[in-house]
Amino acid sequence: MSDKRTQYLLDASRMPRHWYNIAADLPRALPPVLHPGTLQPIGPADLAPLFPMALIEQEVSTEREIPIPEPVREVFKLWRPSPLFRAHRLEQALGTPARIYYKYEGVSPAGSHKPNTAVPQAWYNAQAGVKKLTTETGAGQWGSSLAFAGALFGIDVTVFQVRVSYDQKPYRRALMETYGARCIASPSMETQAGRAALALRPDHPGSLGLAISEAVEIAATHEDTKYALGSVLNHVLLHQTIIGQEAMLQLEMAGDDPDVIVGCTGGGSNFAGIAFPFIGQQLRGGKRRRIVAVEPAACPSLTRGRYAYDYGDSAKMTPLTKMHTLGSGFTPPSFHAGGLRYHGMAPLVSHLKELDLLEATAYHQVACFEAGVMFARAEGIVPAPEANHAVKGAIVEALRCKAEGRSEVILFNLCGHGHFDMSAYSAYFAGKLTDQSYDESELALALAGLPSVAA
Amino acid sequence: MSDKRTQYLLDASRMPRHWYNIAADLPRALPPVLHPGTLQPIGPADLAPLFPMALIEQEVSTEREIPIPEPVREVFKLWRPSPLFRAHRLEQALGTPARIYYKYEGVSPAGSHKPNTAVPQAWYNAQAGVKKLTTETGAGQWGSSLAFAGALFGIDVTVFQVRVSYDQKPYRRALMETYGARCIASPSMETQAGRAALALRPDHPGSLGLAISEAVEIAATHEDTKYALGSVLNHVLLHQTIIGQEAMLQLEMAGDDPDVIVGCTGGGSNFAGIAFPFIGQQLRGGKRRRIVAVEPAACPSLTRGRYAYDYGDSAKMTPLTKMHTLGSGFTPPSFHAGGLRYHGMAPLVSHLKELDLLEATAYHQVACFEAGVMFARAEGIVPAPEANHAVKGAIVEALRCKAEGRSEVILFNLCGHGHFDMSAYSAYFAGKLTDQSYDESELALALAGLPSVAA
Repeated sequence: MSDKRTQYLLDASRMPRHWYNIAADLPRALPPVLHPGTLQPIGPADLAPLFPMALIEQEVSTEREIPIPEPVREVFKLWRPSPLFRAHRLEQALGTPARIYYKYEGVSPAGSHKPNTAVPQAWYNAQAGVKKLTTETGAGQWGSSLAFAGALFGIDVTVFQVRVSYDQKPYRRALMETYGARCIASPSMETQAGRAALALRPDHPGSLGLAISEAVEIAATHEDTKYALGSVLNHVLLHQTIIGQEAMLQLEMAGDDPDVIVGCTGGGSNFAGIAFPFIGQQLRGGKRRRIVAVEPAACPSLTRGRYAYDYGDSAKMTPLTKMHTLGSGFTPPSFHAGGLRYHGMAPLVSHLKELDLLEATAYHQVACFEAGVMFARAEGIVPAPEANHAVKGAIVEALRCKAEGRSEVILFNLCGHGHFDMSAYSAYFAGKLTDQSYDESELALALAGLPSVAA
Repeated sequence: MSDKRTQYLLDASRMPRHWYNIAADLPRALPPVLHPGTLQPIGPADLAPLFPMALIEQEVSTEREIPIPEPVREVFKLWRPSPLFRAHRLEQALGTPARIYYKYEGVSPAGSHKPNTAVPQAWYNAQAGVKKLTTETGAGQWGSSLAFAGALFGIDVTVFQVRVSYDQKPYRRALMETYGARCIASPSMETQAGRAALALRPDHPGSLGLAISEAVEIAATHEDTKYALGSVLNHVLLHQTIIGQEAMLQLEMAGDDPDVIVGCTGGGSNFAGIAFPFIGQQLRGGKRRRIVAVEPAACPSLTRGRYAYDYGDSAKMTPLTKMHTLGSGFTPPSFHAGGLRYHGMAPLVSHLKELDLLEATAYHQVACFEAGVMFARAEGIVPAPEANHAVKGAIVEALRCKAEGRSEVILFNLCGHGHFDMSAYSAYFAGKLTDQSYDESELALALAGLPSVAA
């Protein structure tokens, strides 16, 4: 009992010095990104109005290891390496022979994995002389992370927050303001995209796709302003690989090797962060593991979307990428995991799904909250509604192990805590939380509206 | 730059195995505790209706080291040892030659230092066969901590939360419910003490003293129910000494020795936790350090209270202790650091103040929030309103060092994060947060009402 390890901590000296770029190990290259006007492949220069060149280079790089700048690692030391926990008490509560580990990203100042990319993005922008950044946010985890990163490097941050989350989660807005950022409900009257959406539907709940349009519009029309995205793009997923790399070292300390890796997917970045380093090992001839992406049943891009070229935003201002998409015109219902309310999936995650390197599953929110409450009562940490999807996925695997009598090793990413989402837990306990479904005809319409691209 | 240490982590194997009991090193023993009926010194048996015998023994023990039970240490591994940080970025923002360290207790599941005592209290009660616990809470940090600990050991927890905090901080209530506890606004109609208070003042904002009366009344009148207190008592302060003991080991790792130690004080437990192990060293012939208690100017028991015998609750149901008190009839104004709204100070902290082993100072809340926002923008972590008092105290010391050109070592306890207090930050940014003052005549009245005890 007294020697039972619960928390596996890495010394700061063992924090990874490189990000892992899975593009280097892909058996088939990612389909090209297309220009929204010409529908032809774009080059780095096309992205220059939005991003500094260092990030554009990372977006297209095929180098396996990309160095993490020292000043970025210095900031990471405020919370990294993040802990890996063995979930002894959850295992006991489930009566499973499985060994469950979770990597906990909620220790960051903003409470999720998002600062892993917010900090380098802000730093590269600061290096390029950028003074203002715009972005979008769903639940607010990304917006507060970029606000934090902006405060560190003297960058003014403006965040367009999806209206439904803006209303549900006022504490996230206060957090952004504490870090010095400005937070605006989207759709807003500050952009053409926002005004157009409000004209069509004055009570528009917003969507990530629409908030992206607003943030991109401001950046594209202001010389001194660039844009930052919290998920989906290759360089964002790249920055998150520090999660999986640390987990690998920590599992070595624990003397275990995962059989199943579980993460929740919205845009795909925390999932990529935990999974890509392990998938990379496999691509280089290592162990084959089951990699499970868990998405919300109310916004199921991987399990119900089409693998097709689509825009990243609803106003069709962004380049097109090939991805699993519900259609950029799709507005998901207002469920509580605001960070997972995105119509598309990261091109890299989509590509790996097509290559049969991962599997996907979807759960409704009430079952996910049930899993989250069970987790909190066993392990203490209250997960974010997004992370509850990963908890649910891990519990399903652990119960399968129990039924099959197999003591597999399960690793999942607990990407953030739920401190800013307690109104959702209140609703759950009051019996007011219900499963949300999208309108099948709206989905059909959104899919029918996909651009026709010869690919 | 690359070798600069920010976070000092202890391996779980170095987590202390004993609590430090300062009673063993006191040059003069603590004045006796008096029975509320007879005003005569009480014995352990008098406390038996409220607490299990193991905790009563700790309350009166003069052993220097008291073992931490292994099952309690196992639970602690969910978040302990907690990190010690060097505040490089805050030092830079202040331009101070001082070296500032902070011990961060916000990594616990409930987000503060309170689980350090909630877990052993719940465990000792479970060992004694107790199935139900009642308690009070101010901001909700203690209530959610006991809720968490109750969930681990199968104990039903009922929490009386001070009305003003219950209304200001609904997320804390949701957290208690997530851990399975019941949370009731105090004053309530469920107790005589509550009904009496509401009869006098239907809009009563509540106070810790009154919530204690309600919780104690339930425990005293129900055979199967015991009571747990989150601060003030000797055994509670004892449990918190793990903070200072860990900090001592971590400062050794850093090669530094503090000249000034700062903590915020409400009931005194987090302050005792960081300070007592260092004061103990001094009492045994070690280095003399400045120990600074920072309290809210709106509830200044150490700086404005009288050192006298008083009740712990407003209904005068608890035993009397000698302490710095504003009078048990004093109702502090509704400022945001709910955890510091208590009329009295822990007898041990009061005693050490009388022995000139510590100094006390008080700040108003706006200055404390200003310090907290500066801290958040530099270090990332958003402190709880209570912890902002310690941040303010540390910044004052660091600026003194700057003015004097001295590179002293400052250690402070960042006892919790502010994720559940963001409405207070919103109010601060909206310019709606004002400094609260108590009514001088109300204080005079409360002090005049102190019991007359020959001591």
